[in-house]
Amino acid sequence: MKVLGKHLLIEAKNCNAGLINDLDFIKSIMINSAEISGATILGEKFHKFSPLGVTGILSIAESHISIHTWPEYYYAAIDIFTCSTTFKPHEAAKFLIEKLESKNFDIKEIERGINNNAIIEPDINLIHNEQKI
Amino acid sequence: MKVLGKHLLIEAKNCNAGLINDLDFIKSIMINSAEISGATILGEKFHKFSPLGVTGILSIAESHISIHTWPEYYYAAIDIFTCSTTFKPHEAAKFLIEKLESKNFDIKEIERGINNNAIIEPDINLIHNEQKI
Repeated sequence: MKVLGKHLLIEAKNCNAGLINDLDFIKSIMINSAEISGATILGEKFHKFSPLGVTGILSIAESHISIHTWPEYYYAAIDIFTCSTTFKPHEAAKFLIEKLESKNFDIKEIERGINNNAIIEPDINLIHNEQKI
Repeated sequence: MKVLGKHLLIEAKNCNAGLINDLDFIKSIMINSAEISGATILGEKFHKFSPLGVTGILSIAESHISIHTWPEYYYAAIDIFTCSTTFKPHEAAKFLIEKLESKNFDIKEIERGINNNAIIEPDINLIHNEQKI
């Protein structure tokens, strides 16, 4: 398989319900998680649902980090998708899990990319001569 | 398991390299995919890398839709995460795959939520009395 991206799917359970319902808190730890793990932020969107729940997404040069929270279940779903070797997704994951005070969690690591035999080498013509596309 | 979200991970392979390198095209089909499948868009961020590749993310009330493309590999990684029963993620997936002219693709459907026995019923006090958090 030609792996082009690594994707962490994190089920953060038994979180602090107050914290995962706090828009400003979620926004600050998401931005911090990107900064400490070496990501470059391109854009962001955070939103608070009424009465409960926060959704947040960071577009980063290395792909994205997202969070969706269910305070009534003490649960947050976090995704960290990276196509970079310098960005450290597990550092971001550890930071977020700790900040949410999650007492137990699962992390799935999924390789994203091309798993067929059709094309596993990049097309050099496309890389060096973009206008040919 | 208490399923709170459904997450489609799509490997769109053998795509049209020109289309997946076109920022305006990617933005338009992402927005269309949300609209036709019943999603409510909260925010967006799209970015073109030089020389190749586009990243795009839609924050939707139902969670998120993201795309990261590698034109040199004719490949796009798409994620559609929904916590809604009215939003139809497979319709969005089908639409995007067709528009990218992907000749073959894989779709993984992953259930997101709480798979331990600790807390599977929502805390009614939190739902009806948010200030108690």
